[in-house]
Amino acid sequence: MTTKESPSQAAPEFPFGATGETWLSILESEGLADGQPAYVTSPLKEPKEVYPPEPGIDAADFELQPRGLPPERRKKALDAMATYLINKRDHMLGYQFNQDTDGAQLDLSRFLDCHVNNMGDPFDHGGYKPNTRAAERAVLDYYAALWKGKWPHNPKDPESYWGYMISMGSTEANLYAMWNARDYLAGKALLKPKTKDDSLHFVQAAPPKDNPNALIPIAFYSQDTHYSFGKAMRVLGIENFYAAAKNRYPNDDCPLGGEWPTEVPSKPSSKKGLDDGPGEIDIDKLVPLVSFFVEKGHPILISLNFGSTFKGAHDDVELVCKHLLPIFDKKGLVERELEIIKGKPEVRRGFWIHVDGALGAGYGPFMRMASEKPEVFGWTPEAELPAFDFGLKVHAKKLGKDIDMVSSISMSGHKWPGAPWPCGVYMTKVKYQLAPPAEVQVIGAKDTTFAGSRNGFSPLVMWDHLAQFSYKDQVERIRVAQEMAQYLERRLKELKAPVSLNVARTPGSLSVRFRRPNARICAKWSLSSVGQNVHAFAMPSTTREKIDELIFDLQASDAFTITKKPPIVELEEILAAVEAVELAPGAISWGAVAFTGRGME
Amino acid sequence: MTTKESPSQAAPEFPFGATGETWLSILESEGLADGQPAYVTSPLKEPKEVYPPEPGIDAADFELQPRGLPPERRKKALDAMATYLINKRDHMLGYQFNQDTDGAQLDLSRFLDCHVNNMGDPFDHGGYKPNTRAAERAVLDYYAALWKGKWPHNPKDPESYWGYMISMGSTEANLYAMWNARDYLAGKALLKPKTKDDSLHFVQAAPPKDNPNALIPIAFYSQDTHYSFGKAMRVLGIENFYAAAKNRYPNDDCPLGGEWPTEVPSKPSSKKGLDDGPGEIDIDKLVPLVSFFVEKGHPILISLNFGSTFKGAHDDVELVCKHLLPIFDKKGLVERELEIIKGKPEVRRGFWIHVDGALGAGYGPFMRMASEKPEVFGWTPEAELPAFDFGLKVHAKKLGKDIDMVSSISMSGHKWPGAPWPCGVYMTKVKYQLAPPAEVQVIGAKDTTFAGSRNGFSPLVMWDHLAQFSYKDQVERIRVAQEMAQYLERRLKELKAPVSLNVARTPGSLSVRFRRPNARICAKWSLSSVGQNVHAFAMPSTTREKIDELIFDLQASDAFTITKKPPIVELEEILAAVEAVELAPGAISWGAVAFTGRGME
Repeated sequence: MTTKESPSQAAPEFPFGATGETWLSILESEGLADGQPAYVTSPLKEPKEVYPPEPGIDAADFELQPRGLPPERRKKALDAMATYLINKRDHMLGYQFNQDTDGAQLDLSRFLDCHVNNMGDPFDHGGYKPNTRAAERAVLDYYAALWKGKWPHNPKDPESYWGYMISMGSTEANLYAMWNARDYLAGKALLKPKTKDDSLHFVQAAPPKDNPNALIPIAFYSQDTHYSFGKAMRVLGIENFYAAAKNRYPNDDCPLGGEWPTEVPSKPSSKKGLDDGPGEIDIDKLVPLVSFFVEKGHPILISLNFGSTFKGAHDDVELVCKHLLPIFDKKGLVERELEIIKGKPEVRRGFWIHVDGALGAGYGPFMRMASEKPEVFGWTPEAELPAFDFGLKVHAKKLGKDIDMVSSISMSGHKWPGAPWPCGVYMTKVKYQLAPPAEVQVIGAKDTTFAGSRNGFSPLVMWDHLAQFSYKDQVERIRVAQEMAQYLERRLKELKAPVSLNVARTPGSLSVRFRRPNARICAKWSLSSVGQNVHAFAMPSTTREKIDELIFDLQASDAFTITKKPPIVELEEILAAVEAVELAPGAISWGAVAFTGRGME
Repeated sequence: MTTKESPSQAAPEFPFGATGETWLSILESEGLADGQPAYVTSPLKEPKEVYPPEPGIDAADFELQPRGLPPERRKKALDAMATYLINKRDHMLGYQFNQDTDGAQLDLSRFLDCHVNNMGDPFDHGGYKPNTRAAERAVLDYYAALWKGKWPHNPKDPESYWGYMISMGSTEANLYAMWNARDYLAGKALLKPKTKDDSLHFVQAAPPKDNPNALIPIAFYSQDTHYSFGKAMRVLGIENFYAAAKNRYPNDDCPLGGEWPTEVPSKPSSKKGLDDGPGEIDIDKLVPLVSFFVEKGHPILISLNFGSTFKGAHDDVELVCKHLLPIFDKKGLVERELEIIKGKPEVRRGFWIHVDGALGAGYGPFMRMASEKPEVFGWTPEAELPAFDFGLKVHAKKLGKDIDMVSSISMSGHKWPGAPWPCGVYMTKVKYQLAPPAEVQVIGAKDTTFAGSRNGFSPLVMWDHLAQFSYKDQVERIRVAQEMAQYLERRLKELKAPVSLNVARTPGSLSVRFRRPNARICAKWSLSSVGQNVHAFAMPSTTREKIDELIFDLQASDAFTITKKPPIVELEEILAAVEAVELAPGAISWGAVAFTGRGME
């Protein structure tokens, strides 16, 4: 038995990176090329030759080697990157990422020379002192007020908000929400059982004898939902209704008739052929699907979109809640008893409604203010957005009280507000945090967030944005963006092209969809495509000048001549061409995986 | 049935934030105080009064309100934060976060005015053009070379490395590793089964008839492991050996005798009473625990520490592999067939070894180079670190071939290299990615990373660091840090104090442990405590001057007089005081939860 360390890669002879020396000669000059053992592995090929090229960037400028880069080479590469990024930024219309970071360079540069880290719970004191908890808590309070949470955060009040600033984009907040929902609905808890190790345990109740499904949540989200929800199901082992139907109820018919859909269908188009629907969840389909699983005794996990990733659509959270609460109420899902501690049953609800407001939770409150008080804000939005936040209550007849419906909200900081990198907010209420009341909440405070280390620079970015704008300014930002979306829609509709452009926009949405132009134009404007269409998002960084330049580009004679297909279509084609296989006996499917067609988050 | 939106919070009368106006008067001045509906919820208390205070920061300076902040107030708050952070940075000795960001402000400020986002797979082309994939791929290649991976990345070569830069700290990389390992070992795959929906599905094989445990992985990690692993078990529903023993084998005795430990014990102290052991995993305990579950037919998931969070210890990855491979080999876990596609069995291994190198994977390769070639680097480290990377191979007798042992590695960018916020690298090999060969890897490329949106600024930070230093410079950085750790250890041992300081340091570690001083000193130096001890980490930002100042502070007459206990002890005391409860019939424990005593990540 021997331990070996012998990377099989011999130092190659081709020129490597910006300086053009071979890797071998670099190793030799550093005293590291005397054979065995190899201290590092050598490249098998020049990376530049094998990685996807990006016009404007010479990958060789960035290749790193054992000697570091000479300072002038390093600066040249950074200059090239800056030129590239600024050019791309100034022509970005495709994604829902605001390109205006509100003077972050001027205000925040100096913080780049600190390692800022908000480890752990934002309401904890924080042993690592170079942190920005004060700014983070102010940002959280700001959104708690806007989303009608009870604030400031109070760990002893079940109705109080709790939340934190995420380090990823909304994927993290959505994943956290699904995790919290799964464990809450599955009857898990954090407590100290009578064991000899004298520590906290993560425990789970047994289901009541008359309902083995009582602790098996089933998830529902529409086909316009971001692909990260499918990923969350896989990571967390949550069954969405499709997987549950196939694996648990193979002999039951789908209540919608026909095959079970893999996700909840979105509303169909009202104007056949012109577009493919507004992108909102189809409540008439959601209700029977949910009812089916409520009847089987399952708790229900629903995620709704507020500003969906492709169409920028807003699910009617208010109407969904009105339709579903009576169903939950009838089956006793609004308040149900779980026995985790012997003889001390705990009351939890048997449903969880999450709002993925990655984009829309940022501007939604301001659009709603404007709709409600046009005399204050001097603007009436074309679409009245539904209520979507912690203030939304529906009356439960059987229980005889008003029920607050929304359990958690996600929002990205780099979408509506604008930030140099992905960030955002996750928010819920104290009563949904997985801990028995009082004392253990204090203990749990050490590790309540998804990440241990958390980006402490992002709170400064968001704080600096929110401090610069009043509510009135924010209403003005969304008014202008809505106007830009309407302007882009109009210009596209007026554009004379050899083919129909299929221009579509859901009222109130910032997304304008139209026929995919050629690869050159898609790359120039970072247009994101789904099948034959692309979207452009009107954000605070979107100007008439940019729109006019895009329209000019779309008037080129080859604008809609597709010579080489963009990659996303190739993916779909590859997917269609993949050979379908027969599963081995006993193998099961946990659900279909959406890779394309959802935009990005 | 009615929908209601009536936050119960009335606008309060107390002065709010830096301007001292009441919230109600602010609302009034903005035209938002006419009663119903309430557009926002109002604060129940002044946040400053309820949130933990931090000397040097006036929380009221940061409180945000509907009117935004006057520019001079905003700048004053940012100035206060800068003064606070720089002071705290210059006195930070407690955590393994390098405080030197290598001139990030000078080099990278200009990028703060772009939204840089590396959405999706780093080796994909990226539809969102303001990205820094070129820099990210260079950083990944750099670590692939150092960790003896096969590079550049080649999706068609199973032995090639694959990885990406994370947006959180190493919690993300560790969670990703555990997720990948769980699904790989559980026989899951991404493929297109013969169904009517013509999409990719996430499927799972059935276990072979003679071994129902073949697809139920059991996890092992030591008691010095970061608390995020316990969280990963909960998130991912993985059973560690303790939970598995309690729930699956309640009648079996622990092979170590006595009660089952909740995690794998660490090595005991050789010098009784002086310290609490070096912090490395106890291989003599690990082996029988693993053997127990191998005998039961389970696949095995092991996470080892390389630079642990409290003691900076390095598990002997090499020795662990030497001991365990024969056990795996004997039971056919090195290569085993899984039938996912009917009639086409796939060969996968039945074990996964992950290395949490959050700290140590950054400097480990340089320390090993120095040990192997002292004549080139002019330095012989006091401890020779074990092999821990993709180059580590052990000979499997039964199979008759060398087996590469390590499946995945995590590293933090904000620890050894240094960065303004948490970041890092996750790395594995193509052969472990969950996809059938060839075509589907191309499809999966769209969504291989944990987050959708990914921080695109972090690659610039890490690239700029790696471009500035040669391998020789890096060896010099770790030599100086090791010297600083030794210097701190010596000064502490020489220090005359009224009580024993229990100074301890594991050879080769950057962490020096000693008795916890008073709260003032802990806060000044951001010292992180576990029970009665604290640690200080010698990082590239640690200087003799800082150490001398700390030693000076520790000579104060009240330095070790604990008047008010720091919070982490309170947590432990609260935990001890929590009443143990009797679980309800049928309720089960999924494992003990470590909240304290692990340092931070």
